[in-house]
This record gives sequence, structure tokens and C-alpha cells, in this order.
Amino acid sequence: MDLAELQTAIRDTYLTRDAERGRDATFRWMTEEVGELAKALRTGDRANLEHEFGDVLAWLLSLANIEGVDLETAIARYADGCPRCGSKPCGCAFS
Amino acid sequence: MDLAELQTAIRDTYLTRDAERGRDATFRWMTEEVGELAKALRTGDRANLEHEFGDVLAWLLSLANIEGVDLETAIARYADGCPRCGSKPCGCAFS
Repeated sequence: MDLAELQTAIRDTYLTRDAERGRDATFRWMTEEVGELAKALRTGDRANLEHEFGDVLAWLLSLANIEGVDLETAIARYADGCPRCGSKPCGCAFS
Repeated sequence: MDLAELQTAIRDTYLTRDAERGRDATFRWMTEEVGELAKALRTGDRANLEHEFGDVLAWLLSLANIEGVDLETAIARYADGCPRCGSKPCGCAFS
């Protein structure tokens, strides 16, 4: 699945509503989904866990659409290894 | 950019360290990046904003790798419109 095409699909599906809701309320929605992901990690329901991972990404894309940020461009520096040390696997000292 | 290939790149770059750190500490790292995204939204630095969007997705992918969740599968229900109402644009009543 192409990430840019996915962002376009989320834009076509939700941008009108996302823009009406606004940036900060959309950020709040995204953090609500992060909380649901935390609960799914704790309770161990695999189907729900997958569901919540999808919801977090969907809301991150909605927020990116409101801000006019292309998530594919934003993540590009990770595509070929660690953006800090340039290696795959990463050889940075932090943990 | 293919989302599954991106998840593989993050896995090849970070999974050894992600697994050593563990699920909960990786979730904490992800939420730290969500906080940095919040700050970038507030301060309005566009380059930093894009950077933080990328970091949130990278940590979401790290967490998905630890949990063995394929993010492309997880987000698939959003690819052709709203998973609740089936429409693009979404026609659901919630806001």
C-alpha cells in the first residue's frame, strides 16, 4: 500500500470534517486513539490491537492533512536506515 | 513509498534495539514524540513539524514491529473510504 495514496484516501474521506473540527481537536482525537492503543497493549486482544494501530495512523494522517504535511516526505529519512548514523541496523549509542 | 517496505526498513534498522527496550518503554518513546509533535504544532516551525510527524510514524512502526502487527493490514480498512459508513467523503454523524 502506497503511503501517499493512503494519505490521499484519508484526505478525500475526512478532510472537510477534519478542517471543520480543527487542528487541536484533531490532535486530541489522535491522542484518544493513542490511549486506546495503550489499553489494547495491556488487555492483549490481538484483533483490537491491530484495529487501534490502524486508528492511530488514520488520525495521524488526518492531522497531517490539516497541516499540509506529506507524511511520505516526513518519514523518507528513515527509508534507508537510521537517519542519525546512516546504518541498518542502527549503530547509535542511545537506547 | 510502500508502507510495508517502510515497516521492513524500520524493522531492519531498529528491531534488535526495540525488542531489548521492550514494548512499554517503546510506547513511552512514541508518546514522547507525540509530545514533540504537539510542541511543533504550537511553535509553527514547518521543518520541525514535518520532522516530528515522521518521528511519530517511525515509533508507531517500531511498536508495531515489537507486537508483530502489520501496519498496512491494520490501516487497510481506511483505504477505500470510511470503514463505518463505507463512503468517501465520510457521511457518519459523529464529528
